[in-house]
Amino acid sequence: MGSLGARLTRVEPGECEIRLPYSPALSQQDGFFHAGAIGSIADSAGGYAAFTLMDASDRVLTVEYKLNLLAPARGELAIARGQVVRAGRTLTVARIDVFAVASGVETLCAAAQQTLIRRRS
Amino acid sequence: MGSLGARLTRVEPGECEIRLPYSPALSQQDGFFHAGAIGSIADSAGGYAAFTLMDASDRVLTVEYKLNLLAPARGELAIARGQVVRAGRTLTVARIDVFAVASGVETLCAAAQQTLIRRRS
Amino acid sequence: MGSLGARLTRVEPGECEIRLPYSPALSQQDGFFHAGAIGSIADSAGGYAAFTLMDASDRVLTVEYKLNLLAPARGELAIARGQVVRAGRTLTVARIDVFAVASGVETLCAAAQQTLIRRRS
Amino acid sequence: MGSLGARLTRVEPGECEIRLPYSPALSQQDGFFHAGAIGSIADSAGGYAAFTLMDASDRVLTVEYKLNLLAPARGELAIARGQVVRAGRTLTVARIDVFAVASGVETLCAAAQQTLIRRRS
Repeated sequence: MGSLGARLTRVEPGECEIRLPYSPALSQQDGFFHAGAIGSIADSAGGYAAFTLMDASDRVLTVEYKLNLLAPARGELAIARGQVVRAGRTLTVARIDVFAVASGVETLCAAAQQTLIRRRS
Repeated sequence: MGSLGARLTRVEPGECEIRLPYSPALSQQDGFFHAGAIGSIADSAGGYAAFTLMDASDRVLTVEYKLNLLAPARGELAIARGQVVRAGRTLTVARIDVFAVASGVETLCAAAQQTLIRRRS
Repeated sequence: MGSLGARLTRVEPGECEIRLPYSPALSQQDGFFHAGAIGSIADSAGGYAAFTLMDASDRVLTVEYKLNLLAPARGELAIARGQVVRAGRTLTVARIDVFAVASGVETLCAAAQQTLIRRRS
Repeated sequence: MGSLGARLTRVEPGECEIRLPYSPALSQQDGFFHAGAIGSIADSAGGYAAFTLMDASDRVLTVEYKLNLLAPARGELAIARGQVVRAGRTLTVARIDVFAVASGVETLCAAAQQTLIRRRS
C-alpha cells in the first residue's frame, strides 16, 4: 500500500480511512485512477478496519472481495472508507466506499464488500 | 496495465492471457505479489477476453468483479487467464484464473468472476 | 416473492423493506430460514429499491448479487432492507441488509451487494 | 433443498450435480424459475461439492456466494453443477454453473462463485 503512496488517515474501532493522492503512475490512459489502484485501497481499508477489532498478534488476510466500479475515479485524491459489518471469531465482513475527490468535491466511485479471515499466531 | 509491466501473451475469441513478471514494486512486505496487482491483471484479462467478442469501435468497462484470493502469490511470474462465460448485447460475464509461477510450477492463487458493459461509440 | 409469503412493508425513493414470516416450508433441517429464502428477499429488496428510482414503464432485472451469510437466520421473521448506492441510466447498484427477528430482537444475518439493469419498454 | 423438489443426481470428489424440475411454486410471474430457486440450487451444488472433500463428521457452511443471472431460466428443468476450485483446511472455493433445460436443450442461465467454511465437530 505504501508503495502506491497511500496513507492511513483515520483508524477507529471497526473503521478505517485511506487516502491516495493522484499520480500519473496510478492512472489509466485517460488520466483517471486505475481500477487496480481503487481495488487496492478498498481492500486495504477493509483489512485495516477488520484488524482494529483483532488482537495485535493476529494477522488478517483477505478471503475475497467484490467491487462495483460506479463512476470514473477522476480527481486529485481517492479516499477509501472501510467499515466492519460483522466481526466473528474467524471471519469478518466489511463494506468499503471509495470516493474520488476533484476540486474538493467527493464523488462515490466504487463500493465493495469483503470477507477477511483472522490468523492467530 | 502497462505501467505494472504486464504483457498480453495470448488473445483468442473469448479468451485472453496476461503475464506479469515479479518486481519489488508489485510486492507486499513478504515478497509476494500484492493483492492489488493480482486484482489488476485479473480485471484486465477478463476485460480483454470480453473485448475480443465486440466491435473494434466499442469500449468495454468493468461493472464489477469478485475475486477470491486462494493462495499466496509467490514466484517469478503471475499469469491471469480470462474466459468469457456469456457475451450479451450489453453485458458480458467472464471468469478469470490467476496463477503464480515459482520455479516454473503454476499454482492457482486467485479466482474471479466479472461483469462488463459494452459502450458503443 | 409472494409465493414465499413475503410482504413489501416500506417503499421510499431508493429504499425498500420486505418482511417474510417464518414458516416450516422456508426452513432448512434445523429450523432456521433457508439461505435460499434469505437470498430471495435480499434480491427482491434491492430490486424494488432500484425500481423506485425508475419510470413506471421500466423493467428492472438483477444482473448479479453477492451475499454474505453472517449468522444463522433464526426467528419468527426475516426483514430485508435494500438501499440504492448508485442509480445510473442503465445500471443501478444496491446494498441490502437482512435481519432475523427472534422474540422481537433483530440480528443482522446477511449482507448483500447487487447490480441491476433497467430495461426500457 | 428437498422442500423445493430438488434431487442430487451426481456426486464425485469435488463435484456435484443437482436437478430441480419446474413447478409453478418455483416460478415468478412469467413462468420462469425464480432467481431464488436458481440461487438455492447453485448454493447447494457448491456446498455438496465442497463436502465431498471433507470428513463425514464435518459440517460445511456457506460463507458467501456471488451469482450472475445470465439468461431467463425457462424450461422443464434446472440443473446446477458445482465444482471445487480450491479446497483448503478451513475454506473451500467452488464455482457453479446453472442450466435451464427446455425441450431437452441446456442453456447456461447462471454462474456463481462461492466460499464455504468447514466446521469440525
